[in-house]
Amino acid sequence: MDGDREAGFGSPVDPEQRRPLRTDLTPIVEAVRAADADAFVAVGDRFDDDLRYLTRVVGPEREYALVVVPGDGGSDADRAVLCVPPPFREQAEREFVAGARSRRDGDGEFHDGVAREVRIEGADDHAGERAAAVVRDLLGGADDQTLLVPASIPHDAAVYLERAGNELASTDAVATARARKTDAEIDRLRRVQRAAVAGMARAETVLAESEVVEAGPAETGDADHRHPLRWDGTPLTTERLRRVVNATLAAHGVRDAGDTAIGVGPSAADRHYVGDDPIRPGRTVLIAISPRGPDGYRGELTRTFVVDGDGGWGRRAYLAVESARDVALDGIEPGVPAKTVHGEAAAELGAYGFDPNAGEGEAGFTHDAGHGVGVSRREPPSLSGAAELRPGQVVAVGPGVYDPGIGGVRLGDLVAVTEDGCELLAEYPLGIVPRERGG
Amino acid sequence: MDGDREAGFGSPVDPEQRRPLRTDLTPIVEAVRAADADAFVAVGDRFDDDLRYLTRVVGPEREYALVVVPGDGGSDADRAVLCVPPPFREQAEREFVAGARSRRDGDGEFHDGVAREVRIEGADDHAGERAAAVVRDLLGGADDQTLLVPASIPHDAAVYLERAGNELASTDAVATARARKTDAEIDRLRRVQRAAVAGMARAETVLAESEVVEAGPAETGDADHRHPLRWDGTPLTTERLRRVVNATLAAHGVRDAGDTAIGVGPSAADRHYVGDDPIRPGRTVLIAISPRGPDGYRGELTRTFVVDGDGGWGRRAYLAVESARDVALDGIEPGVPAKTVHGEAAAELGAYGFDPNAGEGEAGFTHDAGHGVGVSRREPPSLSGAAELRPGQVVAVGPGVYDPGIGGVRLGDLVAVTEDGCELLAEYPLGIVPRERGG
Repeated sequence: MDGDREAGFGSPVDPEQRRPLRTDLTPIVEAVRAADADAFVAVGDRFDDDLRYLTRVVGPEREYALVVVPGDGGSDADRAVLCVPPPFREQAEREFVAGARSRRDGDGEFHDGVAREVRIEGADDHAGERAAAVVRDLLGGADDQTLLVPASIPHDAAVYLERAGNELASTDAVATARARKTDAEIDRLRRVQRAAVAGMARAETVLAESEVVEAGPAETGDADHRHPLRWDGTPLTTERLRRVVNATLAAHGVRDAGDTAIGVGPSAADRHYVGDDPIRPGRTVLIAISPRGPDGYRGELTRTFVVDGDGGWGRRAYLAVESARDVALDGIEPGVPAKTVHGEAAAELGAYGFDPNAGEGEAGFTHDAGHGVGVSRREPPSLSGAAELRPGQVVAVGPGVYDPGIGGVRLGDLVAVTEDGCELLAEYPLGIVPRERGG
Repeated sequence: MDGDREAGFGSPVDPEQRRPLRTDLTPIVEAVRAADADAFVAVGDRFDDDLRYLTRVVGPEREYALVVVPGDGGSDADRAVLCVPPPFREQAEREFVAGARSRRDGDGEFHDGVAREVRIEGADDHAGERAAAVVRDLLGGADDQTLLVPASIPHDAAVYLERAGNELASTDAVATARARKTDAEIDRLRRVQRAAVAGMARAETVLAESEVVEAGPAETGDADHRHPLRWDGTPLTTERLRRVVNATLAAHGVRDAGDTAIGVGPSAADRHYVGDDPIRPGRTVLIAISPRGPDGYRGELTRTFVVDGDGGWGRRAYLAVESARDVALDGIEPGVPAKTVHGEAAAELGAYGFDPNAGEGEAGFTHDAGHGVGVSRREPPSLSGAAELRPGQVVAVGPGVYDPGIGGVRLGDLVAVTEDGCELLAEYPLGIVPRERGG
């Protein structure tokens, strides 16, 4: 089918995207040593992004556990034991153990020296109970161990670990490790972002192809009275456009993750709108795409368009946001406190006459200028935080202004902090008037 | 574009699928009263399916909280307070408060009498801290309250609640409520399952359209030496086929949720395989589709095909599994212990000469015959559990047999338990030889 080929199904699948990723567990081992603790334990299900990062396993719907125990610094190696239910043995061996080994034997990116192992839970074991048994086994049966755990470990797992005689202390070592990406991780983020570009190109093309049925009373400024755009013979709505974008993402091997948000006019001012609105000429159409790739890494790309607009609020907002985006991207470099990036973008929006500190539901700039992106769509660093930016961080930069009665304009891109500035992980053109992009 | 129209983009969006769903909170209120407790508290992020069910809100990536407090049975109504970060106020008002109200004023399906309210967290509040403050406020500041919580509440939230002077007791009231679906929920499950049917039809059509390049040494039984199928001019692989399926799901307004598993030959015996294998003639191609609809409800449809097969293991396995599927579907009715359904399917597979109790990685029937499906892909009841089936339960029924060296065959469907049997939520034809299905 022609449509399939155009949608990208004819392209060969990139084998690089399917090579196993491996996580350096050294920072976890070191956090245990630094805290004078005995082990690190994480428990969660397949939606736990810390576990996804640490193990590279998609994991079961039910909870599973990872235990990391430092060696004695001598002949006793550092060890990591992944406990999964029986049906996940093959997957865990492949993705956690063999994945790490192949990378070690391959390009030698690093060798963390952690001996990885999979153990199988009984079908009725609770993951916390199982983790307690592994801790006891690895640490020679001693009581009164101190275990580092992520703060949001499930309560029932924490209770199992405590009842087994351990003391728990929370750690942010995983979040810290995740914030600084390796080259291999940045490469995955870049590939996902390229798929987001393909989705946006398709959406922009659909808008450019759409017909304005009649001018209507646009000159009165009442865009609600104009007829919706027509595409492919029927009225275009936010849900129809979302489906086209999501199908393009699927054709490129990533998933929309339920996070393709498309709003038009007032619903473009609601950042979490997923309803079905007719897309009318003259209104801001805000398209935010945040796909998830096969390894879990996310993209983030936002553009705003107006079809057959008459200038006015949308055009003014676009100019302001474009300028704030320039300022923000120029401001990103190592050593800069993250919040100065937010502050400079906000000041630029203020210079264009928009409230730089608007509250939720008010008119103006209502959110922060950006946040880290990795296995989670939103992770450290926040661009309104005090910490300095560091090379290897990847952030979504997305200034925007909104007016609840009129619409919203946001422009969002994904950048990696480099040694001396930042790098856009994928380029997508700017412009409020949609054009055919060959998507 | 023709491809777009064929993929379903031209169809109008079904407005019914976007009507707000509402959850009857009466069972939660009653569980609190029955336990002589003071309130129910749930804390989780957008991936917490209990919260998704209770609130119908997609929710933020960070944790948020729901507090339910029974009234005094008199003028003091039952209350439910949802605490979300500021950017989610509009969404929460729309989906939790207004969604419930519109349903109440609409078809009058039920009226649980619970007064719903949204409160906004400070940007730096922890959801557990916020929930503790709401509990204190709603209960008049008294200490020593007993709170029912789901067992897997995040540990840090549990600690906040305990430090505020509350005692926690875990409850399975949410899981129990979720297991019995309302007509509106079954309708959503049916719609998602119809999208799964469209995805499967597209996959089967692609297999039927694919070319066998040459017969090769099939007569020697060594399918690995046959050339891969060709589709659309290039070799067909599991990942290419997965992309086609996922794009079709997206065109129908549901997402693949990362759960489209396609294996071929030996990888069809690995139930969690997501790699990229060439699809060769003579091999079992196992396609499992489990999409997620806009309200979170899941589908589950599995079929197995062989292109240009020579009979042998795949054909024998197919006959056995088809027969086991008949037996299982015939056995599902209210009052039957769920595990008898598994037992009868297993016995049927045994009668065909397959090991009905094979361990993971062995040859035979290695899993249970099915499980409940709802907002989670896998939830109660299990078809190997002792509890009796009840009307309103929705289960995926999917017997299968595997041989690690050869392949796997599974046939999976979604059924609702009715008053006197069960109803397939969507029909999809059987048959090991792929046909063009107009997908």
